[in-house]
This record gives sequence, structure tokens and C-alpha cells, in this order.
Amino acid sequence: MEKFFDKWIAVDWGTSSFRAYLIENNDILGDVETNDGMKFVQNHNFEKTLVSLLEPWLDHKHKIEVLASGMVGSKQGWIEAPYQKAPCNLNNIEFISPSIKDNRFSLKIFSGILQSNKPDVMRGEETQIAGFLYDNPNFRGSICLPGTHSKWVQIENGNIVNFKTFMTGELFEIISKNSVLIHSVTSNKIKKIELKRAVDEIFKNPEFFGNALFQLRADDLINSKGSVIYKSKLSGYLLGLELLGSLEFWEKKDIVLIGNADLIEIYEYILHKKVNSIKLFLSKDMVLKGLKNFKNKL
Amino acid sequence: MEKFFDKWIAVDWGTSSFRAYLIENNDILGDVETNDGMKFVQNHNFEKTLVSLLEPWLDHKHKIEVLASGMVGSKQGWIEAPYQKAPCNLNNIEFISPSIKDNRFSLKIFSGILQSNKPDVMRGEETQIAGFLYDNPNFRGSICLPGTHSKWVQIENGNIVNFKTFMTGELFEIISKNSVLIHSVTSNKIKKIELKRAVDEIFKNPEFFGNALFQLRADDLINSKGSVIYKSKLSGYLLGLELLGSLEFWEKKDIVLIGNADLIEIYEYILHKKVNSIKLFLSKDMVLKGLKNFKNKL
Repeated sequence: MEKFFDKWIAVDWGTSSFRAYLIENNDILGDVETNDGMKFVQNHNFEKTLVSLLEPWLDHKHKIEVLASGMVGSKQGWIEAPYQKAPCNLNNIEFISPSIKDNRFSLKIFSGILQSNKPDVMRGEETQIAGFLYDNPNFRGSICLPGTHSKWVQIENGNIVNFKTFMTGELFEIISKNSVLIHSVTSNKIKKIELKRAVDEIFKNPEFFGNALFQLRADDLINSKGSVIYKSKLSGYLLGLELLGSLEFWEKKDIVLIGNADLIEIYEYILHKKVNSIKLFLSKDMVLKGLKNFKNKL
Repeated sequence: MEKFFDKWIAVDWGTSSFRAYLIENNDILGDVETNDGMKFVQNHNFEKTLVSLLEPWLDHKHKIEVLASGMVGSKQGWIEAPYQKAPCNLNNIEFISPSIKDNRFSLKIFSGILQSNKPDVMRGEETQIAGFLYDNPNFRGSICLPGTHSKWVQIENGNIVNFKTFMTGELFEIISKNSVLIHSVTSNKIKKIELKRAVDEIFKNPEFFGNALFQLRADDLINSKGSVIYKSKLSGYLLGLELLGSLEFWEKKDIVLIGNADLIEIYEYILHKKVNSIKLFLSKDMVLKGLKNFKNKL
């Protein structure tokens, strides 16, 4: 078999970004990262967008396999890859193949996961989880994927047992940009000690949250302590709310954080003394490993 | 004294709306209501805007007194009417008079109230409270003014003793319009029984709030119960958070609700069994009475 056939393309196609890797065996031969997120694709031109982004890696002699996951497989995406029901194992994740006009590649879009008892969904995170489980098949504990929609996921015997989503990142963004706090949280720095204090405050007195947000604005009007303080506190209040609601996932547990470097560092700083053990991984590494894992199981 | 001199103009000039009344003794001779809120006034053209709106009521023979309150007196408004410090009495509320070119009227803009120990501010609500106290000078209990920034205010001996603001209305708006829930809360109806259930849920388990918002979206994706349900629950979760944080203001207390008709009716529905007594007033009536009250004390 010609070596060329071992090449394949891994695609992480989320709501607001696109990332692809050309892979041969375990080597990354090339990669591309753009802002062509699912939501920016006009007139449902998904194939056209994908071809333009992967063009340098396509040729007419050898059909190449493209494996994708993320929001591209949602109802608003290219084609809906039906959710798989949790509890579930990631070793037999399903996929869907949209019809493709270009005959230089085939495409499989992997499913997201759905939980029906306490309604929840994920799409893209399951791939990162599969990436972590690729090297750690016997992990028992919780995986946290902080971000726009933070997920806490309980793992046992390679299964997703239970999970919960928190709109922490999205609330932080819309409150910062669209509420009266816009004037008070202009800084893009975070002071970790202030953030931690705010987390602890909500953790001890969750009833304070309702008033806490407006108090930031009022404190700024009265005392002008600077927007780093208010931004750090806002982050802390929202993170406090998440940690309060995810207690069963981390208290005295082994936990794994998968996300971007800044975010997982903050979560580690807040959680390291409260949990049994903590390990950090970058989401872009885990997506790639996850797609490799899915490919191996095909 | 010519009767004409008893005429004056009451102005409620908020962030997003403008309301004015021409008053003689206790009669309203005319009123105007527009969307010329403080934030829509271009290039600081406050005098020009005011003159154009009041033009029919102005004449060169008699200078008329205009009394205003609301966000027009904020830093972002016409001129900053410095806050008065709570605890405070509304019988000696201060005002500021911007310099006016037009000699057909004079203008007084009343101060807002500031609380420094638990940082909070109000601007406009103090006028509504003064309106209620005009007829109820001996009220002892709490006044709630639901809205974009809901206020809970403790009243004793005609004084504002203590107050707390909750961004309930603003959070409801930005979550409905700017988050992933946009797809699930399109209805503009509320089902009160669902709202009440959601209030009770947060009240019993505040730690649920973090996950509750995303759960609405997931439930819609999985079970499609209709956006009336999700909108009602979103309202309920946010109101639950407010009631949790304002417990000291209403539990076993006499309370007064001042707001728009729909909103105070919802608050009454949720609170009537939990409080000692409850009375409802429309904010537009209370603003007018409040300005009359301020005028009498000048």
C-alpha cells in the first residue's frame, strides 16, 4: 500500500473557529487555523468553505479521509450528526457523512452527546475527552472543559457517566459587553487574588450573587477601584456559581482540565487545594488526539 | 397672584424614555411621553431636546418651573446631580440647576441616592419612593421597584435606611437576546405557574442556578416544550436569585411594589403568600407624586 494513503485530515470545526491538521501516522504534516467558524459560513456553503481551506492538501490521485467534529455537526451546521445518549462509551462514537461533490475527499462528522434525565448536550467536547482517554483509558474522575459553555463530565471505565454545562464564559462575555457593567470591566487583565476572593464569597453565600453584579457598578461609581478589580470579581462571581453547581464533580476527586492555557491555569489556581489531584491539557492537543482515537475505532 | 404661576412641569427623564406633565394645583393639564431617553440625546443637546418637547407649554410672559429626576442627572446625563448618602430622608432631597439659555423656564434636577457600606446607587427610584411616602408618611417596611435594575428598599420613619439592587431585568434581556438561549425564549408570553416553579427551585437549591440556564437550551433541543416554558423558567430563575438575595427585605414584612403593571402583578403573584402585606402602585403615578412631594418641600 502506498504510503500516501496513510494521510488523513483532522478537522475541529466549532461555532466561531476552524482548525485542521494534515496527519500521516502520528506526524502533523501541516495545519490551518482560521475564523471560518460554523456560524460564519454563508448560504450553507460548507463544502466550498472546506475545500478552499484544505485545497493544498487535496489531489485527484488519492481520495483522502477527513474526520471532523464540533458544531459543524449541529442543527445549525452542515448536517446534523444525531446525538448519542449518555451514559455512553466513546469507543463507538457514531458519525454522519454529508454528500460531497468534490471526489478528492470523503468526510465523516462525529456525533455529539446528549443526556436526557438532566437535560444537557455537548458537541466537540466529547472529542477532547476521547483525546484524553486515548492515553488514560483507566481514568476515573471528572473532566472539566472551561469556556463559553463550561462542561463538567464524570468519567468511569472509559464512559461518560454524567455531565453538566454552565454558561460561565458566555455570561461573562454578555455581561461585560451588554450590561451596565460595560463601563466598569474594560480591563483585559485579571487579578487572581481578587478573583479567588469573589469565588469564595459566592461559595459561602450564594444568595449574594443577585446583588453582587450591580454592586460592582455601584462600587466603581463610588470608589473607582479600577476595572481590573471589577473584571476579576465578575469572573470570580460567575466561576463561584459554576463551582457551587459542580461540587459533586470535583470535591475530593481526581480532576482533569482541558481548555486554553489562560483558562485552565485560572481553574487550577482556584481548585488545586480543593481537589484530590489535578492535571492540565490544552484543548487543541486533545481534539487532535480524540480524532485519532475515533479514527482507530472506525 | 395670577393663577398661571401655579403651573409647573414634572419631568421623569430616564435612560431610555422621557415623560413630562404640565400641572396646575393637583390637575394634570397635559402630558408628553417619548423615547427621547437620556442615552439617545446626541451631542449633549439636552436643552434643545427639552425645549422641543415642552415647547407648547412655554411662553415668554411667565417663566415656568421644571422639576426633573432620573438618569438625566447622572454622569452620562445633562449634569451630574451629586448623590445624597443613605440612610437619608426624602424631605430634603437636593437638586442641581444646569445653566439654561432659554428664559421661559427654570430647571431643577433632583439627586439620586448612594449607599457606601454595601455599595449601591439609585437615580429616579427615590422620586417614586417619595411619591408613595407622600400619602403614606408612616409606612414601615420595604418598597420593591422591579425592572431593569430591581431595587429593594427598607423604609423607616420616612427614611431610606438600606437598599439593594439586582440586575434581574437586564440579565433577562441580555440572556434572551445575546446568549445561546436566543433560540429557545422567543415567546413574549409568561406562564406564571412555570415561573413560580422556577423561583421555588432556585430558592430551595441556589446551587442549581449555574447549570439551570444551559439546561433550558438543552431541554429545548431534546424535548422542544415550547418557548413559553423556557422563557417563563428563565424569568423564574432570575427572579428566584433576586428573592434569595433580598430575603431580609420581604420575609414577614409589609411590602409595596412600584413598577409597570405586568411586572408588579408577577411579583405579587410570587410574593403574596410569603409576606405580611402587599400593595401595588404604578411607577408613572409615583414619579408624578414624588415630584409634587419634592416641590412642596422646596
